[in-house]
Amino acid sequence: MPGPLPALSELSPDEEADFFALLSAKESLTTKDGKPYFRVAFRDAHREVSFPVWGDSTWALECRDTWGKGEFYKLRARYRETSYGPQLEIRKIRLANEADRSDGFDPAMCVAHSRWDPRAMYDSLVALVQDSLEDKDLADLVLGILEQNHEVLLNLPAAKHNHHARLGGYLEHVLSVTKTCVYLATKYAGLYPNLEPPLDKDLVIAGGVLHDIGKVREMKSTPVGAEYTPSGTLIGHILQGRDILREVATRYSVAEEKLLRLEHIIVSHQRLPEWGSPKPPMIPEALMVHHADDLDAKLEMMVNILTEDTTKGPLTSSRNALGTRIYRGEANASHD
Amino acid sequence: MPGPLPALSELSPDEEADFFALLSAKESLTTKDGKPYFRVAFRDAHREVSFPVWGDSTWALECRDTWGKGEFYKLRARYRETSYGPQLEIRKIRLANEADRSDGFDPAMCVAHSRWDPRAMYDSLVALVQDSLEDKDLADLVLGILEQNHEVLLNLPAAKHNHHARLGGYLEHVLSVTKTCVYLATKYAGLYPNLEPPLDKDLVIAGGVLHDIGKVREMKSTPVGAEYTPSGTLIGHILQGRDILREVATRYSVAEEKLLRLEHIIVSHQRLPEWGSPKPPMIPEALMVHHADDLDAKLEMMVNILTEDTTKGPLTSSRNALGTRIYRGEANASHD
Amino acid sequence: MPGPLPALSELSPDEEADFFALLSAKESLTTKDGKPYFRVAFRDAHREVSFPVWGDSTWALECRDTWGKGEFYKLRARYRETSYGPQLEIRKIRLANEADRSDGFDPAMCVAHSRWDPRAMYDSLVALVQDSLEDKDLADLVLGILEQNHEVLLNLPAAKHNHHARLGGYLEHVLSVTKTCVYLATKYAGLYPNLEPPLDKDLVIAGGVLHDIGKVREMKSTPVGAEYTPSGTLIGHILQGRDILREVATRYSVAEEKLLRLEHIIVSHQRLPEWGSPKPPMIPEALMVHHADDLDAKLEMMVNILTEDTTKGPLTSSRNALGTRIYRGEANASHD
Amino acid sequence: MPGPLPALSELSPDEEADFFALLSAKESLTTKDGKPYFRVAFRDAHREVSFPVWGDSTWALECRDTWGKGEFYKLRARYRETSYGPQLEIRKIRLANEADRSDGFDPAMCVAHSRWDPRAMYDSLVALVQDSLEDKDLADLVLGILEQNHEVLLNLPAAKHNHHARLGGYLEHVLSVTKTCVYLATKYAGLYPNLEPPLDKDLVIAGGVLHDIGKVREMKSTPVGAEYTPSGTLIGHILQGRDILREVATRYSVAEEKLLRLEHIIVSHQRLPEWGSPKPPMIPEALMVHHADDLDAKLEMMVNILTEDTTKGPLTSSRNALGTRIYRGEANASHD
Amino acid sequence: MPGPLPALSELSPDEEADFFALLSAKESLTTKDGKPYFRVAFRDAHREVSFPVWGDSTWALECRDTWGKGEFYKLRARYRETSYGPQLEIRKIRLANEADRSDGFDPAMCVAHSRWDPRAMYDSLVALVQDSLEDKDLADLVLGILEQNHEVLLNLPAAKHNHHARLGGYLEHVLSVTKTCVYLATKYAGLYPNLEPPLDKDLVIAGGVLHDIGKVREMKSTPVGAEYTPSGTLIGHILQGRDILREVATRYSVAEEKLLRLEHIIVSHQRLPEWGSPKPPMIPEALMVHHADDLDAKLEMMVNILTEDTTKGPLTSSRNALGTRIYRGEANASHD
Amino acid sequence: MPGPLPALSELSPDEEADFFALLSAKESLTTKDGKPYFRVAFRDAHREVSFPVWGDSTWALECRDTWGKGEFYKLRARYRETSYGPQLEIRKIRLANEADRSDGFDPAMCVAHSRWDPRAMYDSLVALVQDSLEDKDLADLVLGILEQNHEVLLNLPAAKHNHHARLGGYLEHVLSVTKTCVYLATKYAGLYPNLEPPLDKDLVIAGGVLHDIGKVREMKSTPVGAEYTPSGTLIGHILQGRDILREVATRYSVAEEKLLRLEHIIVSHQRLPEWGSPKPPMIPEALMVHHADDLDAKLEMMVNILTEDTTKGPLTSSRNALGTRIYRGEANASHD
Repeated sequence: MPGPLPALSELSPDEEADFFALLSAKESLTTKDGKPYFRVAFRDAHREVSFPVWGDSTWALECRDTWGKGEFYKLRARYRETSYGPQLEIRKIRLANEADRSDGFDPAMCVAHSRWDPRAMYDSLVALVQDSLEDKDLADLVLGILEQNHEVLLNLPAAKHNHHARLGGYLEHVLSVTKTCVYLATKYAGLYPNLEPPLDKDLVIAGGVLHDIGKVREMKSTPVGAEYTPSGTLIGHILQGRDILREVATRYSVAEEKLLRLEHIIVSHQRLPEWGSPKPPMIPEALMVHHADDLDAKLEMMVNILTEDTTKGPLTSSRNALGTRIYRGEANASHD
Repeated sequence: MPGPLPALSELSPDEEADFFALLSAKESLTTKDGKPYFRVAFRDAHREVSFPVWGDSTWALECRDTWGKGEFYKLRARYRETSYGPQLEIRKIRLANEADRSDGFDPAMCVAHSRWDPRAMYDSLVALVQDSLEDKDLADLVLGILEQNHEVLLNLPAAKHNHHARLGGYLEHVLSVTKTCVYLATKYAGLYPNLEPPLDKDLVIAGGVLHDIGKVREMKSTPVGAEYTPSGTLIGHILQGRDILREVATRYSVAEEKLLRLEHIIVSHQRLPEWGSPKPPMIPEALMVHHADDLDAKLEMMVNILTEDTTKGPLTSSRNALGTRIYRGEANASHD
Repeated sequence: MPGPLPALSELSPDEEADFFALLSAKESLTTKDGKPYFRVAFRDAHREVSFPVWGDSTWALECRDTWGKGEFYKLRARYRETSYGPQLEIRKIRLANEADRSDGFDPAMCVAHSRWDPRAMYDSLVALVQDSLEDKDLADLVLGILEQNHEVLLNLPAAKHNHHARLGGYLEHVLSVTKTCVYLATKYAGLYPNLEPPLDKDLVIAGGVLHDIGKVREMKSTPVGAEYTPSGTLIGHILQGRDILREVATRYSVAEEKLLRLEHIIVSHQRLPEWGSPKPPMIPEALMVHHADDLDAKLEMMVNILTEDTTKGPLTSSRNALGTRIYRGEANASHD
Repeated sequence: MPGPLPALSELSPDEEADFFALLSAKESLTTKDGKPYFRVAFRDAHREVSFPVWGDSTWALECRDTWGKGEFYKLRARYRETSYGPQLEIRKIRLANEADRSDGFDPAMCVAHSRWDPRAMYDSLVALVQDSLEDKDLADLVLGILEQNHEVLLNLPAAKHNHHARLGGYLEHVLSVTKTCVYLATKYAGLYPNLEPPLDKDLVIAGGVLHDIGKVREMKSTPVGAEYTPSGTLIGHILQGRDILREVATRYSVAEEKLLRLEHIIVSHQRLPEWGSPKPPMIPEALMVHHADDLDAKLEMMVNILTEDTTKGPLTSSRNALGTRIYRGEANASHD
Repeated sequence: MPGPLPALSELSPDEEADFFALLSAKESLTTKDGKPYFRVAFRDAHREVSFPVWGDSTWALECRDTWGKGEFYKLRARYRETSYGPQLEIRKIRLANEADRSDGFDPAMCVAHSRWDPRAMYDSLVALVQDSLEDKDLADLVLGILEQNHEVLLNLPAAKHNHHARLGGYLEHVLSVTKTCVYLATKYAGLYPNLEPPLDKDLVIAGGVLHDIGKVREMKSTPVGAEYTPSGTLIGHILQGRDILREVATRYSVAEEKLLRLEHIIVSHQRLPEWGSPKPPMIPEALMVHHADDLDAKLEMMVNILTEDTTKGPLTSSRNALGTRIYRGEANASHD
Repeated sequence: MPGPLPALSELSPDEEADFFALLSAKESLTTKDGKPYFRVAFRDAHREVSFPVWGDSTWALECRDTWGKGEFYKLRARYRETSYGPQLEIRKIRLANEADRSDGFDPAMCVAHSRWDPRAMYDSLVALVQDSLEDKDLADLVLGILEQNHEVLLNLPAAKHNHHARLGGYLEHVLSVTKTCVYLATKYAGLYPNLEPPLDKDLVIAGGVLHDIGKVREMKSTPVGAEYTPSGTLIGHILQGRDILREVATRYSVAEEKLLRLEHIIVSHQRLPEWGSPKPPMIPEALMVHHADDLDAKLEMMVNILTEDTTKGPLTSSRNALGTRIYRGEANASHD
């Protein structure tokens, strides 16, 4: 009994195979001398192959009339690396279906995903809450929110673009932020033992877990990537995250003032009004969550730029999400 | 049987009378040669009298030990206008009490209030909603919110400072904004008859009524003026207004998308992030509510400046809520 | 005797007809294999047809040597809708001339124009001034300015891009703003009866009529759209509008201070220095004109975006004059 | 026959003399124990003496009832330097009058004035225009404007505060700016000999002379300093300067385009909208006038700070018109 | 043999004792009725007593003629807590001198200092560098810089105002930042194991140690607090810190590119040009140092506000270094 | 014996010649029907010829495999001006070599260069320093810096883009700025003779010479234009210029405070943090250098825009380095 099919990204040049792929782009174009053609792209999580389907080719009509962007296909094709870039010589193509799952088909295989298993990350997050929160009512509330959004969280990217924009990226980001929160809360509670009111470690950690929870309403995963929902665009994840907290909180007995502080952490976590926070941090706990989040997001952007920028030399271009050149150094400066 | 007592603001110079007044200020000071004294202020809605209580005066001890800022008193005193400003020569003084209501005592008599009767304004607002909203579910929702906050709204100022900062000021502002909304919605629905989606007059009007509803949670009326609540400071009336809408909406059957639009109107009604709106207006209805509100608030500020600025000449000072000089003209330029 | 010719925008696919059209674009291009060709566009007010004239086509030489962008032509052509977009198969073509007016030729037929008749709007504006201004000297001044610019105003767009960018758009915008001014001035004069100096309704209305009058010097209508004049670019319509007022005012006996206020309304009507106003509104009347204008312009932009944005889904793109996505709602979200 | 009286600023401690002085301040105050008194200040151009007039002093009643701020007086008084600062022991005091001019009274003697003679500066400016402008029509226009404002210019400060705020300060600033303009225009015309259009030296120089001409309408000299006029506040000197140019230009035959360029230089000379210029420099000549003006004004502010800042040490305070500390160096750091 | 003298801050009301104190303020004032007097303040690290020295008191002349702000004194005085605040009834007073050290005099006793011993903090910092830096050349360079500035660092505050403005505050801040750097560097090196170039933990830690090193040149400790030096004001600690690094680096063999990265970390550590960094972080290591520093400084400010703000109620005033109200909560809201 | 070869920019249409040229661009492209080709550009200082090398042409293989962007070639070719733009019909081509210098080859001949001889400008700058600096130690220091960077300065452009971006452009800009500095320093020293500290003319002039000296480290000249170095990007020329000054100053005996002022001039010469200056000008000398530099740079940009903008009409486009339209006037408005 055969195992799963090979992945598109595993094919060697000139190898012909059956595989599953997502039609991630389909654009109608015209050559300069007036002939219509299509440019299509098929991809799995790690390779995207974009090539033209000329008007006189075998697949011209079928492409025009039936292929749909965002659909998954089973293809038999030869993978070619030509001087015009990679290409697929398609022999057979049909929509993937439920039965294909026995051959290893899974829509998630065609999109970028986190290096870590979402379920493991989710479990780590739950364990962190259980182990580190001393206020058990608060812990129950936080866990209740996680549980309620369990399935969505497993697949959510952290953002549409910019940072952690891959399946599971949300958990990756939140887990990292929460760990930093544990460190910072423990450290500063030690440094300021006499602060009045005392630094509330629980709030910093709960804030780390929940700061972005509104993204489950702001974004919607689709096969071709995350989209903003109408309510996400008109209201925004900061307000929506606070909604979730308030809705679920009615089922738990967290003290009113503690809840207000936690709402404030969510509301202020982006610090500046022009970044979306209507209020700046007004409690030490909110300041810590802001910095833990901001560093994690910006660092991920910088890492992405270092990974993806294709210009030569010791510095990247400045056309990127951070708007500044990043320094690779001489050792990483590939030259022509 | 005697009628109500005269008001402090009605006393003529040298007139002695019994009257009720609020102790609106009490400050502990020291003369240059080291003697302690108090500066106190009594006021009703239209006159405030501020004067020193010297350490060797009749009332020195009682002032120090028992008089409380924010308390209401019944006084017997002579009202004097001296070259050092107005003064009260106090003969008798005691806390006002419930029994004094038969003599006309009413805490509301001691604070600034709107020129219009709050109840009449409230009724006008209700009538406007009943008469102009075509979607009866939406009308019920709006009326439900008004009704739930009825008592608070009657006394709420529109802001702590800046505009409509007087009892009933909230209703004054909201009624004026809503009327402008009716005008604008009717006008532009006529000018753009084919717009898709059609301009929703109901939403503009409901938005006018509800845009500032969060102020019932953001502010708390006190005898000496409005104060921001902790939640008002940490969260803000824009988010709190949307909360009220969402909470009450669960009891009415307004279409989900219409509700989202109405939430967005509240969220975006201050237009700019640095003014508190996390999202800018993204529907025509929100734009109208913003302009109706912004003009009403700024105009009231300008009117206050023209009324209150005490500098001479054809232009006011620029030290005011708008940060700019206002032009009175020559006819209103009182000169030394 | 024949009536006017059909319009380009009225032709059905494959219909051949004589019609008048504007050559709105003519661009010299080269195919990848080095052959020169032209891309031309013909349009009337409601349809633009853009297509290539290949180097080996019948019209190649004539196109290169004689056709001029911005000229009007009489064409005999077949209108085709091909898979490469709409095209014209030209049989005959010559410059339109005066004699063609008897066949219905009118340059104005080839550009976008207001939904309302400019002459009727102009008359409405005049009537508004006559009916609502109490100061007859001021009314005469305002009417004098309108009359002096009568012909230009009938054809002026309100802006080169952004809002009301069509023939008659200026009058459309100004008439709408002035009507709002009448409403606001009447309303607030009633709300603030004791203001000193009293709210001057006449000034608000006159300000509505004249706020953009400088555009008659800032912009110049051309067959292919409005252009900024050198003086419009170097000086700007705000200053030029005040010039017009001051020049014409020498012929009328408006009180000096009233004139100063009216000048100030023009100068401050865009409120912020970065929007072009060197001074912010310093009188209540200026504030009202600013808001009436600002709402009308932004609302028109939003309407245009809703009408013209071609992206799919419940939200438009954010690449538009307002820089924000606009919400259409689900009902208007055309999907692939 | 006696010469002029000595000046207040020339008196030695304990010297008693007759002299003229301006009553530059008169404030009504109350001591902590409730006694009213006045604080008055008398000054000439170089010394101001501020002291109290106690309620029980000889001059108490006369001070309260007849002395007027902004009036000039002839005093007989002893000048004292006490540990409470300088004082005047007044023996006699009366209003100065026309007849006093024979004793050397001149209102201008009591205010700060330029180190240079205004008439000489005016003549230098005229000579500069006559000598350096090649276009005689333009020269006539510029001279016509100077002549028309001759008397006002002699006394005008360059600004109410900030820079050159002394009589004749306007001419001081304008003469300096114009000289820099001559240098820059000559230099850059030499460096860019082939520029199209050629650098117009005349325009740079005329722009230097006229850039601030609107200040004759924006400000009004008074004995106690310059005041902004209503039109200056509502419209501003940039627009008013252009008005003067346009009004006078109707009497001269300067080419229309040259006039437009000169208007633009005035309009853009402060470069940024938030500094008052609705348009940025769009011709090289405007850029030069801006820099010549900006440096001259900022340098004068820095010189004033170095002269007037009374803090100790090698750096001044940062509370000044430039908002930054200025470095004096160790040699000028007076220490306690 | 007696031990050290008691401290001013240890005296009980009405206790008379010998003690050392700093004259931290001496101001010449005048009573309303014209009598000159001085207001002086004596303090040690934890108590400041400010009181008037009247012109007719025992110490009037000596105070005027010999007492100097910033000098240390040995006093014999009774400490009184009067209704006008705390006072000192001075019996004897003379300058403190070297011999007084045997009685426990130490200038450092009179200023605020860190809760931790500077020497212990310095040693911890050194140990951190020795333990965690893998590149021994880099470690030597960092240690060399610390050693060279050893004595200065022990006494340096972290800032003149705002955060850690106490002796030893520099080390407190730097030690805390460096510890966070160790955490972040270790964490993210683990999260991004394949980054090219690899995350350089050493640089993050060295950056934490050195980011503010320029403060040894920017500020100068004085008995009454830190002052900015001229070079600190004209050049700034960011550039001066890089100078120190470059100067000392000539004695060590750190690779050129590593040195450039470390310079960049110092240059960019405040991230924004308006905060003083001419370049934004362009390497991941710089981003981490920025966040570790920024959080530590802002958190300290927030803690100071919570500790020092004297207003009542659950929220502090917004007049503080962060410009926003801080929430204490109800439990810490002391009411009248 | 033959003279030097003709330059590419001197060839007439259809002329065939031997000449030297830089391969300034080589791009790999594909025709719409999938055929690969290259687009190459050859240029000397005044003419660039860009044309395709088709896959079936004589030079296709050699172009693909050996031609390198940034290399200099000796070509024999016919220069053609076709309807597809200028072309080269290449007969022979080989790399230029050292021996070609005898035929006049010089890499500098192929890039844009200043209208003035760099050596003459350098000598002028040296002479200016020698003639105008009174402090001979300072003069020696400045000359020492120039000498040390002599060779680099001769070829340096003033900026990568924006202004003086041509070989020798650095010297052109610096010489012009220094001359203005001499004028301004002399003028204002005369206008403020009593300033304390006195205006230091030497510093203004030395500041003019050295303000941009850091560009020798920030930029690196390459045959195809200037590139930013890693240290230039990570640190910036403002800090690097101060480094050069400090390094060289150790060899000269300039007074410490004077050196600090000169460092400050370099550090502050761009005035605003967002333009790269961490400190604003805090001495009059720095203000003058800033204005001399800023005007020279912006004027050069404006001249470039006037020279290079290819749009028609009296105004240029606003897509340029200054972000604003520049006015040419009617005489320079070339129309279609």
